Amino acid sequence: MGKNLTKRSEDYSKWYNELVVKADLAENSGVRGCMVIKPYGFAIWEKMQAGLDKMFKETGHENAYFPLFIPKSYLSKEASHVEGFAKECAVVTHYRLKNAEDGSGIIVDPEAKLEEELVVRPTSETIIWDTYRKWIQSYRDLPLLINQWANVVRWEMRTRLFLRTAEFLWQEGHTAHATEKEAIDEAELMMNVYADFAENHMAVPVIKGTKTASERFAGALDTYCIEALMQDGKALQAGTSHFLGQNFAKAFDVKFANKEGKQDYVWATSWGVSTRLMGALVMTHSDDNGLVLPPKLAPIQVVIVPIYKGMEQLDAISEKVNPLVKQLRAKGISVKFDNRDTHKPGFKFNEYELKGVPIRLAIGQRDIENGTYEVARRDTLQKESISADAIIEKIEFLLEDIQANIYKKALDFRSEHITQVDSYAEFKEVLENKGGFISAHWDGTEATEERIKNETKATIRCIPMDVKIENGACMVTGRPSDKRVLFAKAY
Amino acid sequence: MGKNLTKRSEDYSKWYNELVVKADLAENSGVRGCMVIKPYGFAIWEKMQAGLDKMFKETGHENAYFPLFIPKSYLSKEASHVEGFAKECAVVTHYRLKNAEDGSGIIVDPEAKLEEELVVRPTSETIIWDTYRKWIQSYRDLPLLINQWANVVRWEMRTRLFLRTAEFLWQEGHTAHATEKEAIDEAELMMNVYADFAENHMAVPVIKGTKTASERFAGALDTYCIEALMQDGKALQAGTSHFLGQNFAKAFDVKFANKEGKQDYVWATSWGVSTRLMGALVMTHSDDNGLVLPPKLAPIQVVIVPIYKGMEQLDAISEKVNPLVKQLRAKGISVKFDNRDTHKPGFKFNEYELKGVPIRLAIGQRDIENGTYEVARRDTLQKESISADAIIEKIEFLLEDIQANIYKKALDFRSEHITQVDSYAEFKEVLENKGGFISAHWDGTEATEERIKNETKATIRCIPMDVKIENGACMVTGRPSDKRVLFAKAY
Repeated sequence: MGKNLTKRSEDYSKWYNELVVKADLAENSGVRGCMVIKPYGFAIWEKMQAGLDKMFKETGHENAYFPLFIPKSYLSKEASHVEGFAKECAVVTHYRLKNAEDGSGIIVDPEAKLEEELVVRPTSETIIWDTYRKWIQSYRDLPLLINQWANVVRWEMRTRLFLRTAEFLWQEGHTAHATEKEAIDEAELMMNVYADFAENHMAVPVIKGTKTASERFAGALDTYCIEALMQDGKALQAGTSHFLGQNFAKAFDVKFANKEGKQDYVWATSWGVSTRLMGALVMTHSDDNGLVLPPKLAPIQVVIVPIYKGMEQLDAISEKVNPLVKQLRAKGISVKFDNRDTHKPGFKFNEYELKGVPIRLAIGQRDIENGTYEVARRDTLQKESISADAIIEKIEFLLEDIQANIYKKALDFRSEHITQVDSYAEFKEVLENKGGFISAHWDGTEATEERIKNETKATIRCIPMDVKIENGACMVTGRPSDKRVLFAKAY
Repeated sequence: MGKNLTKRSEDYSKWYNELVVKADLAENSGVRGCMVIKPYGFAIWEKMQAGLDKMFKETGHENAYFPLFIPKSYLSKEASHVEGFAKECAVVTHYRLKNAEDGSGIIVDPEAKLEEELVVRPTSETIIWDTYRKWIQSYRDLPLLINQWANVVRWEMRTRLFLRTAEFLWQEGHTAHATEKEAIDEAELMMNVYADFAENHMAVPVIKGTKTASERFAGALDTYCIEALMQDGKALQAGTSHFLGQNFAKAFDVKFANKEGKQDYVWATSWGVSTRLMGALVMTHSDDNGLVLPPKLAPIQVVIVPIYKGMEQLDAISEKVNPLVKQLRAKGISVKFDNRDTHKPGFKFNEYELKGVPIRLAIGQRDIENGTYEVARRDTLQKESISADAIIEKIEFLLEDIQANIYKKALDFRSEHITQVDSYAEFKEVLENKGGFISAHWDGTEATEERIKNETKATIRCIPMDVKIENGACMVTGRPSDKRVLFAKAY
């Protein structure tokens, strides 16, 4: 049985859509734009959650939960925020259904109209800052470092599994601080936490930077981001962390008495990553045979497939395999012994390749005789025969090596796809023929940024944190520029 | 500083409401009926989630995620289900807000009306069974054992923190089986898992049983439940597990080919517990001084309060305490050393008593000299002086002893509050003056059940699993009955 997976070189977008469904990660539901995250996909997301949650707690954050609904009037309190979110939100207007009197079915009960409409949260700054007003009186109540794991809804017109869905899962951190500096430090810290997670758990290299004014979160004074590069040369924003200044504190009247007893508005940040990370994970590592998962996030790290004829041979294999499974589990390695008699080894090999299981062991009659396992690694598809005595050590080595190898591969790809250009013609040429990040001088105006976007579909992904100050001229207008920024087409 | 907590004997309901807020568990939000779960409350819920999730996985279940929204037409497909849920649901009718042309603010955009209204899930049977139709073709696809952690919304008119809120957090298991027996076994298994969790993690004794027809879940053929008893003598349904027969499979046309190749409808269960468990936890154990938490669910198991004058004394104390903190953490015990210089020991004692921290250590100058700690347990409020050499052993003992002791206390209370009666007069008398569960004969008719409910507000909480078959007569009608059922007033 083949996988019938479109090749990346044929149609990258189609390859992605097929892979997400075929590898049992997610599928579209009967509700426009909303996805079903299937058990295998959800198991990966759970590992992401666990890794991030640990990092949040280690940096002093606590989890809490705020309402799903936001009264319409709350959303309006911060002017740029409502501009950013009002256009794409789900609005609850009624609280009851009833049987139609003409027997035509169930209808909305017109008598159950809400006095004030409720918006399903697209993000929770407003409801949270309305709450913080009650929690913060004094500098002693600060900093307030809170995170929420939640579902949010943005009524996107064009949706794609994980990358852009009407409902998605995310975490949103919302912190309150006594000083501007503390808030800025927090926003930077969380960008660094995200980068650490992306690189060391997901094996996805990212570029850290800040957004230009036009690409900022609605209501932010500064947006920090991590940008990843997909195999088709398009960038993907993988996480953002916002310095919100005193905007939400002012909108919701959240003041505190500082050490000198003077009243001041509180400083804020918010930061989030979402199930979009699943899309980044798939598109960074996977190949024409299916998913490639980093061992740290793989729900099954090792699969063992028996190759046998008849139950007697399977029993002999199980006798060898069962103790190994126990030993591996004791080491915290997740392992599956697929002894289903309903499927042939070839079918199983295909399935686990498609699902990106990092290590596959096969064991047949000859392996029993020789005291060996056939070990295949998913990232390189290399196979070798390993003595049973050395198998645990080999697996431990491979789990680390695969994690490091796919990171390096992605990093090499990205390095090859950051191109420095000095003219707009060259910019267009590289964008068209090579893709990736393009490092170029820009005059710092929204007009030029907009023109480039309209003419090429490329946007400024970020001003990298490690940017060098140098004399230059905007590739479009020739006006002076003191640093290069990173452009790319993006998801 | 006192806690200003109403006494249970004065007003149990007021005591509960105050305690939930003062102990930082939750509070009402600006959105009608929706609560904010504060970090301390959420930390307890996270421990509940972790414990339950582990038990679900150990019994073969996987997590997944399904859409928040349910198209109106889906809800209508199972007749009794829509009857049960249509009357109290949040309905999304539009997908955009816009600026009013008269400048009066933000309004719902009348042009952004949905073709079909969406209901915010009150429970997910319909959307999940619509999905299962695509996942199930053959007996090889069964059983399908899936759980979801999610928020749900039921537009309750009268709400109370944790006990009844418009939005609440829960888990909902939805399983599909090839045979009726398997589905019934699953529903029973999950009731047992819930009982295990309630008793061994929450230290809340529960009675396992089945609901009468009128108290069943909308769409279920049988509802299994666990019922707990609160200190005011009212029962609280702490978890339910439903055998759904083939109702949802028929409504959503989910058939499978059995081993003989014949098409049959799939058998279903669903089961859930919610943040309501937080209410049960608070009301089972807590006292007039505040929360009493079982060690297994306490976010802070041990708090250490230094008693000192001046920084030099605090330093000497810290030198003793810091290694102890490390040792306890290495044993997986969560411990907080509250060395805040901004608050006095008395304030801290009060705070941790209010928050139900199971064990409090205090250490002052004399303890340093004597090599001791003062150890106080929250459940009995007993204090004793313990040698520093024996302190870890003492803490380990107390964590187990407190867990066992509060369970036993709750169990004793419940045993004293199950009363067997044989006449309706006695029933009313016990209900009025003593409360608790009342074990009585009932003729099995909905009419009698309804009459008792209307006349006394008591409902049949369950037909206990361990019910004895005996000859009896209904306490109201005198008609024959072969078993006693359990009545109570309930939350």
